[in-house]
Amino acid sequence: MADTFPNPALLNALKLNDDGLIPVIAQDHANGTVLMMAWMNKLALAETITSGQMVYWSRSRNALWRKGETSGQTQRVIELRIDCDGDTLLAVVEQTGVACHTGRYNCFYRAIDTDGLREIEMVKIDPDKLYR
Amino acid sequence: MADTFPNPALLNALKLNDDGLIPVIAQDHANGTVLMMAWMNKLALAETITSGQMVYWSRSRNALWRKGETSGQTQRVIELRIDCDGDTLLAVVEQTGVACHTGRYNCFYRAIDTDGLREIEMVKIDPDKLYR
Repeated sequence: MADTFPNPALLNALKLNDDGLIPVIAQDHANGTVLMMAWMNKLALAETITSGQMVYWSRSRNALWRKGETSGQTQRVIELRIDCDGDTLLAVVEQTGVACHTGRYNCFYRAIDTDGLREIEMVKIDPDKLYR
Repeated sequence: MADTFPNPALLNALKLNDDGLIPVIAQDHANGTVLMMAWMNKLALAETITSGQMVYWSRSRNALWRKGETSGQTQRVIELRIDCDGDTLLAVVEQTGVACHTGRYNCFYRAIDTDGLREIEMVKIDPDKLYR
């Protein structure tokens, strides 16, 4: 894997967790909205770099998760960044449609109030239409 | 702990990992910059909610990390949000000074280029001055 990884300097800076994963924050390049957080392994990161499309690692399916593969709601990479400790990535992306599987534009649609949770974003696309 | 947690609805929605932790993205409320990603446990989250200041859990020190405690670079909570799966938090904050221990405004100061890493942010405060 190290031999074929597209960016040796990145591979050197990268600190994966015990499961070989790194958290990745996706941020909309157009307006700065934090869309979601998911995980990549080396394979997903390599494919993200070479394809220019966000590819995560699905921990539930234990497989590559090419974002938008079934829903069409893809994320094109504008820029990838790595943090000071090398253990988190930030992906600045162009989001097609919505990022959240609930049909909302982003996944952080619940604000934490003093004594509960409050929805602050509407469903933009019926999730049944995204995954039929 | 559950008895004294300040927000039962949040506690119910919260999905901590096997170490009892949840990743927290801190975003600057003024300009949308993603400042850093760190971790909280229930204790850190409860104190964050009650104090209105960001309190993380330091995995290296295995202790509460009151952001800015030694450096003065505190983060005041503007809004906390939880994602669709309940396993990531987004904190919209007011950052005093700089977020990164390197003295940069944010931790994602290295862009991933085709064949290497490129620094895209300057050091704003000498880290020796932050931690003397």
